[in-house]
Amino acid sequence: MKVQVIGNASDAHNGQFIGKLAIVIDVIRTSTTIAAALQAGASSVIPVETIMEAKGIRQNEDLLGGERFCKRISDFHLGNSPADYIPEIVKGKNIILTTTNGTSAIKRCIRADGLLVAGLVNASACADLAASLGKDIVIVCAGSHDQFTIEDGYCAGLLIAHLQKLLSPQQLKLDDFAYAMLALYQYTGEQIHNIIRYCISGRRLLELGLEEDLSLCLKRDSIPIVPQYSNGRIKDAAQ
Amino acid sequence: MKVQVIGNASDAHNGQFIGKLAIVIDVIRTSTTIAAALQAGASSVIPVETIMEAKGIRQNEDLLGGERFCKRISDFHLGNSPADYIPEIVKGKNIILTTTNGTSAIKRCIRADGLLVAGLVNASACADLAASLGKDIVIVCAGSHDQFTIEDGYCAGLLIAHLQKLLSPQQLKLDDFAYAMLALYQYTGEQIHNIIRYCISGRRLLELGLEEDLSLCLKRDSIPIVPQYSNGRIKDAAQ
Repeated sequence: MKVQVIGNASDAHNGQFIGKLAIVIDVIRTSTTIAAALQAGASSVIPVETIMEAKGIRQNEDLLGGERFCKRISDFHLGNSPADYIPEIVKGKNIILTTTNGTSAIKRCIRADGLLVAGLVNASACADLAASLGKDIVIVCAGSHDQFTIEDGYCAGLLIAHLQKLLSPQQLKLDDFAYAMLALYQYTGEQIHNIIRYCISGRRLLELGLEEDLSLCLKRDSIPIVPQYSNGRIKDAAQ
Repeated sequence: MKVQVIGNASDAHNGQFIGKLAIVIDVIRTSTTIAAALQAGASSVIPVETIMEAKGIRQNEDLLGGERFCKRISDFHLGNSPADYIPEIVKGKNIILTTTNGTSAIKRCIRADGLLVAGLVNASACADLAASLGKDIVIVCAGSHDQFTIEDGYCAGLLIAHLQKLLSPQQLKLDDFAYAMLALYQYTGEQIHNIIRYCISGRRLLELGLEEDLSLCLKRDSIPIVPQYSNGRIKDAAQ
C-alpha cells in the first residue's frame, strides 16, 4: 500500500486519485464539524463550494451550514462550529455545507476510488477503515488559502502512525512528504496543544473567541465515526 | 525574523521574495556541486534554465556544466557530480550550469533581496550568514519535478535548528511548514543516511551507480562556503 500526502488542497489534482483512496483532512474545522454532524444523527452532509450552490440545491428540510472568514454565513442555519451540530437541530436532516477550505478540498478529490474525511477526532477509525480497504492512499491536507497548516500535517502523520501499527514496513510505502508528516507527528506529540495556539488556524480561532472549537477539534478519537463521500453525499461509513 | 519554507520550487513565486533573503536548497546535487565548484576555485557559477541558453551565453574559457536525467549533457565539459569540480579543471573559470531542478529553482528566487545556495555541506555557514543579515527568510526546497524531496526538507530543518542556536525564540518566527521541517530534521537526525537510500533522489542516484555523489552530498558542513547569487552569477560570499 502506497501512501502519499499532499500538503495543501491547491496541489491536489483529479488525476492523482484514480484507483486510490483519498483521505481529506481539515482538522480546524470542517472535518470535525462533519464528524460531529453525523454523530448527532444528520442523514448526510452535502459539501458544496459556493454559497449560491448551497442555496440553489436546498430542498425541504435541508439545513444550510458553513462559514466565510470563520463566521456563519448570513441566512444559514448553522456555522462551522462542531458544537452547533447537536441532535435537536440536525437529527435526520441533510446538511448542505460550504466552508472556505474544507469543502473545496473534498470536491477536488471526488474522482478517487473512495473518499474519507479525517480529523484528529476520528483519526484511528479512519486509519482502521483505510487499512482494511487495502488501496493505495492519497492523504490531502486541506490547509488554509493554499498554505500548509500544521494541524492537518500532524493529523496526516497520526493516520500514518496508526497505519504502521496495522501493516508491516513491507506493506506500507511512504512517499517523501508522508515520511515528513510522520516525523512532524512523532516529534511534536502532545505539544501540538501548545504549538497550535501560535499557528495560522489556531491563532485565527482564538482571535475570534472560538477557543471551545479549538478544544473540540484537537480531542483525539473523541468522535469515532468515519465520514465517507459517495455520489455527492457524506455519510457515516458504518451505516 | 520570519522564516518561511516552500516545499518545492514550483510553489515559489517572485512576489514572495520582495525584501527577503532567499535560501535555495537542492541537496542532491546542485547545491553541493555549486559549493564544490567555488571551493575548487571557480570564479563564478552562472545558473541557467536551458541547454540552449547555456551554449548561447558561453564566452572564451567558460565551462559548461549540468545534467539531464541525472547524466552529463552531451558536449558539456562537466556533469552535476560535485567530484567533477576539481581545481585542475575549474580554477579561475566561470561555470555555466543547468540542472533539472536546482538551477531553475534559483532562477525563481532572483527577485529576493539576497539569495544564498545551501546544502548539507554548507548549512551552518549559510545559517550563520543568514542570521547576521537579519532579514526575513524564505527557504525554497527545490524538490524534484514539482515534488517535495526529503533531503531538501531535512536541510531546511537543519538551517532552522542552526538559526535557533543563534537567535532567541522571540527573534525567530517560523511559519507552519518551517516548523514541520524542523520536526523532520529533529526526528530523523543521523537516520537520514539510511532513509535517503529509499527516497526519490537517493534511489535514483544509486540506480545510476552514483553512490559517491550521494555520500558527498550528505557530508554535513564539509564545504563551509556560502554561494551567493548577484546579477546573474553565484560567487563565494566571503570573496
